Amino acid sequence: MQALGRQILVEFYDCNPELLKSETYMENAMVQACIEGKATVVTHTFHSFSPGGVSGVVVIAESHVAIHTWPEYGYAAVDIFTCGETIEPWILYNYLKTAFESRQASQMELKRGLFETAGEKLRHKPEGL
Amino acid sequence: MQALGRQILVEFYDCNPELLKSETYMENAMVQACIEGKATVVTHTFHSFSPGGVSGVVVIAESHVAIHTWPEYGYAAVDIFTCGETIEPWILYNYLKTAFESRQASQMELKRGLFETAGEKLRHKPEGL
Repeated sequence: MQALGRQILVEFYDCNPELLKSETYMENAMVQACIEGKATVVTHTFHSFSPGGVSGVVVIAESHVAIHTWPEYGYAAVDIFTCGETIEPWILYNYLKTAFESRQASQMELKRGLFETAGEKLRHKPEGL
Repeated sequence: MQALGRQILVEFYDCNPELLKSETYMENAMVQACIEGKATVVTHTFHSFSPGGVSGVVVIAESHVAIHTWPEYGYAAVDIFTCGETIEPWILYNYLKTAFESRQASQMELKRGLFETAGEKLRHKPEGL
């Protein structure tokens, strides 16, 4: 079986709540994480919600990175979805864990788009970008 | 334990490849799925990749819905991340399965942001939107 994508689902607990409130900080951290991980940023959109909390997504050529923060619980949910072999999602994870000052995190990695192949290699995007 | 969010990860196999190639079709279907599920659409961004395939995200007040398509494999990866109790993510799932003409799908539902509470109810956004 070969997979088209990898997805890391992360629960960042015990973060710095002040950081989680800041749309600008979150947007910069998420974009910078993608750059550190050598992802190709296509676009990004971030929004603040009342009474606090930020949702945002960075669309990358290799899929996407999404975040939702609950500053009142010191918690951020992050998804790092990648395809291809040019980027390493755990670099993004490490960057974000430091950026959010998370003292407790749990994470899991899933394979997405599994296909049984007869030896040939699945073609991943974004090589044709 | 109470959860802040629910996430449905869906593998849509055996879709109509022509539909998966169309950025306009994908964007309309994803936004319409959110409307059908009574989600509040905040923004959406979709992009086509060469030689085929679409990536897109709809940010909703209740979190996000993301898609990546591989028309060459008739496959789409969809994430439906929701918080709060006002929307039912499986409505979005059903809408998209029909829209993509998927003849085979697998899915799983995860709880995100688990907290041990002493009886009090976790406050979900976006009630304060």
